[in-house]
Amino acid sequence: MTPDLRTLLAERYGMPGTPDSPIDDPIVRHLLTHRSVRAYAPDPLPPGVLETLVAAAQSASTSSNLQTWSVVAVEDAARRERLSRLVNNQAHVRDCPLFLAWIADLSRLEAVGQATGRTPAALDYLEMFLMSAVDATLAAQNAAVAAEALGLGIVYIGGLRNQPEAVAQELGLPPRSFGVFGMCVGVPDPARPASIKPRLPVDAVLHRERYDATASNAPASAYDATILRFFEGQGQKHPPWTKQSMDRVAGPQSMQGRDRLVEALHALGFPLR
Amino acid sequence: MTPDLRTLLAERYGMPGTPDSPIDDPIVRHLLTHRSVRAYAPDPLPPGVLETLVAAAQSASTSSNLQTWSVVAVEDAARRERLSRLVNNQAHVRDCPLFLAWIADLSRLEAVGQATGRTPAALDYLEMFLMSAVDATLAAQNAAVAAEALGLGIVYIGGLRNQPEAVAQELGLPPRSFGVFGMCVGVPDPARPASIKPRLPVDAVLHRERYDATASNAPASAYDATILRFFEGQGQKHPPWTKQSMDRVAGPQSMQGRDRLVEALHALGFPLR
Repeated sequence: MTPDLRTLLAERYGMPGTPDSPIDDPIVRHLLTHRSVRAYAPDPLPPGVLETLVAAAQSASTSSNLQTWSVVAVEDAARRERLSRLVNNQAHVRDCPLFLAWIADLSRLEAVGQATGRTPAALDYLEMFLMSAVDATLAAQNAAVAAEALGLGIVYIGGLRNQPEAVAQELGLPPRSFGVFGMCVGVPDPARPASIKPRLPVDAVLHRERYDATASNAPASAYDATILRFFEGQGQKHPPWTKQSMDRVAGPQSMQGRDRLVEALHALGFPLR
Repeated sequence: MTPDLRTLLAERYGMPGTPDSPIDDPIVRHLLTHRSVRAYAPDPLPPGVLETLVAAAQSASTSSNLQTWSVVAVEDAARRERLSRLVNNQAHVRDCPLFLAWIADLSRLEAVGQATGRTPAALDYLEMFLMSAVDATLAAQNAAVAAEALGLGIVYIGGLRNQPEAVAQELGLPPRSFGVFGMCVGVPDPARPASIKPRLPVDAVLHRERYDATASNAPASAYDATILRFFEGQGQKHPPWTKQSMDRVAGPQSMQGRDRLVEALHALGFPLR
């Protein structure tokens, strides 16, 4: 049973009353209810789930209808075990019944070029890499919304970018394709429920007519208090958001190998001109 | 009234009976109903729409909770007119009541660094640019799903990348921020309805356990027939998908300025190391 809009907004923003004017709608409430799930029940997924998620994914917008994405669905336990080791040993990759690897995929257009005697020279450019990553992300988010509609939980796995070449080898990816992120899918473990995490205040991300840097930056200290209150409520010690964020973006040492993404993409067939 | 699942799938895949096992659910049907809307009624948007879309956007997953995105909401007619000229004169940017510019935004973390005496060196890397583009896209797709839930139509505007520096100037974007794409939002014009566009067959995008290049590439000619049938049904002349796609990715001459994306991002404060 989805809670009411007011309750969901209070959880999402960590305080009651903000923002004050959203429109109530069951699908909006569904979107507001999202929380990342990292603890899964051992239940297998019902038949048809994968096809449903992919139909939802294919229904998302795609740039110029080029559909420059693919998804590799991994159910095999040994492969999930190997993938979990490639993404900094995240246990939920091993424990979830379905792991989806979302692929920025320019290889299909490369193959069309070969079949039709054309040279798709634009594929060498950063623009086309970005377009394919955006296409994969639009598709993935529709799949996430669909999964949650079916009562399942998901979590995105950015760690799929820690060792791109090893991931490509494990999944048999052709040149000009790249695993942008993974997604665990499964039945949430009712014994270990996840909570809605509060986000930055609306004013930090929403700008009207022109970007307002003052509004974007002002709320960080207030948000630190919100996040600390949230984790205290969970019985967890946690650093303030500003400190955690600065630790996360400190430099190559904080990037789990992703500082060499340019090199990895070159090796995978993306010149990034 | 949303059509039934079987009808929606037949439209999405351009043929009845594929895939044969999805699960029926109202939110899944909502996602399958998506079509891009480029013709808007002159109606203004009801109050609260923008706040609802942003609350939905902020409810999407975000990498390490860094929330490296922003959105600039443009309602001013003169600014939409100027933006329409920057995106290859797309009339719907001028005609829609609300234009959303989705921003890959590392400037907020830069400001946190300045406020806390830390140096966020990771922001110089391609990885963090990609992360922020992914964050912006996850947020945008949730906003798209919410907009359609409220009876509105949307279309993504990749043309926002045609002239990134001019867009940044028009929107007052700070260094380390970049307009990834735009989105028109409005009431669909009932006199000019849009249709569900068929996508590639499931087998082209869904791979099990490992990527199957044969499956990915085989269906292109069958899809050409599907797309031609779709546009004939719309009373439109249209090239086959393979030809249109190859024209679109032919090279710099087909990229509307986006072949210089690396240079533009450097100028906007993304070293892309």
